[in-house]
Amino acid sequence: MPPSIAVIAPGAMGSAVAARLVEHGCKVLTSLDGRSAATRTRAAAAGMTAASDAEIAGADIILSIVPPGEALALAEQLATVINRNTKKPVIVDCNAVNVETIRRIADIVLSSGARLVDAAIIGLPPKPGTSGPAFHVSGEAAADVAVLGQLGLDLRLIEGPIGAASALKMSYAGINKGLTGLGAAMVLAATRAGAADALRDELASSAPHIHARLGNALPDMLPKAYRWVAEMREIAGFLGPEHPAAMIYEGFARLFEHLAADVQGQGTEAAQIVAFAERCRAKK
Amino acid sequence: MPPSIAVIAPGAMGSAVAARLVEHGCKVLTSLDGRSAATRTRAAAAGMTAASDAEIAGADIILSIVPPGEALALAEQLATVINRNTKKPVIVDCNAVNVETIRRIADIVLSSGARLVDAAIIGLPPKPGTSGPAFHVSGEAAADVAVLGQLGLDLRLIEGPIGAASALKMSYAGINKGLTGLGAAMVLAATRAGAADALRDELASSAPHIHARLGNALPDMLPKAYRWVAEMREIAGFLGPEHPAAMIYEGFARLFEHLAADVQGQGTEAAQIVAFAERCRAKK
Repeated sequence: MPPSIAVIAPGAMGSAVAARLVEHGCKVLTSLDGRSAATRTRAAAAGMTAASDAEIAGADIILSIVPPGEALALAEQLATVINRNTKKPVIVDCNAVNVETIRRIADIVLSSGARLVDAAIIGLPPKPGTSGPAFHVSGEAAADVAVLGQLGLDLRLIEGPIGAASALKMSYAGINKGLTGLGAAMVLAATRAGAADALRDELASSAPHIHARLGNALPDMLPKAYRWVAEMREIAGFLGPEHPAAMIYEGFARLFEHLAADVQGQGTEAAQIVAFAERCRAKK
Repeated sequence: MPPSIAVIAPGAMGSAVAARLVEHGCKVLTSLDGRSAATRTRAAAAGMTAASDAEIAGADIILSIVPPGEALALAEQLATVINRNTKKPVIVDCNAVNVETIRRIADIVLSSGARLVDAAIIGLPPKPGTSGPAFHVSGEAAADVAVLGQLGLDLRLIEGPIGAASALKMSYAGINKGLTGLGAAMVLAATRAGAADALRDELASSAPHIHARLGNALPDMLPKAYRWVAEMREIAGFLGPEHPAAMIYEGFARLFEHLAADVQGQGTEAAQIVAFAERCRAKK
């Protein structure tokens, strides 16, 4: 008998994770109170079951997959309901929050009697035919969710406390999404100065993997830029305000804010980025 | 008869470029006034010829290869001497300066009657058996130094004005050295949080080219970190103070300043970076 699992919320990642668990025979609960018709449709398509807060708190495992800014509030809300129950779930916090935030979440969850696993999802939402994304888990309770590895998730145990998985998520995103940010900033600046073609040629000849990567990563980033703003600020927080590199990630937050506004508005810079990336892909 | 060429200054890049030109039959002048014994030895080993400012100003082509902070002062000094001569050289500014700086240098050089070529050297100093680095050149006078392509330099013409080659240099370094900076910052933060091994494993599995690149780029950066501080500030200036990404490069300047101080001092963070890179190379 597979464990009962709840996934909150049924966003792009949450619903795709739920669909994979459903494929593996799980019943996956979620909360649809006050959600849009589009979200309800997505949750239904993923085979998720609408449930009350009390039912969700009664699941064996609760996966928290929300925008980073909502992770703490969700933990508080869950803890309030769990407090009243005798059965205590394991909450797996999969959110891109920094180490300090996950420690605060741990305090809240543990005080309700539930256990907490720190998790980092690295990769795109599950798709049929792929094994990813990777679910890195850390903390004392990580072994308690090993069953997820038999239910279609690519589970990877980090030997480390609560905070280690979040640190992995922050540092991986800091390199990976940071590189996309550097590419966007420099493509725009080179385009303005008439050096975009020369930049592309030089990357193709002396840094071909970065050239290929930007060809895909730059256009993929544009519709997500608005979400990356908060994620970059989480990374700045992960470094700590006194660290000299924190300024780099505050700069990325402002860059993605600027790009998100351009995508919503004129789209001039977005068009320059897309044009550069298309030529990278054509040259592959 | 090859053109007479002067290279200022005989640093690591300048002397290696000079050595390649000398191999191809050129006489290469340089200024050794007030230079250290080590510099004089390096210039002699490269086959360079000590010359007065007046002799240098009389060369056909003058390559300016100095730290970015000295580029403007060198242009002023050369222009003062050239002003008095009837023969006017082509000055090739190879420095990592931003577009605004190269335009100021153009004003200074053109007012002396000399021509200016904007050049970007991308790659390590010439070594026997290699064809690099690439010398990208832009500006109206770029065609006037095409001969350098027959004298052992990998010359690449950019169709663009003064500023295009500098923009290429800034944008390429902004991606390339920026990536190394992101790697250093995130390796240190992951190490502090006990997630360095997990970060390395995840990079090896989902971003193998970045993993391989950091294995080499991180230790190579440490002894140069002090030089990258000014270069990052040039890139911030290239973006312009009002651009949201300028903050990213001011952050990199502070990070490299911090790392350079660590290299000179305790070396604690340098050791963590080196340890990570060694494990990347071992896993290759």
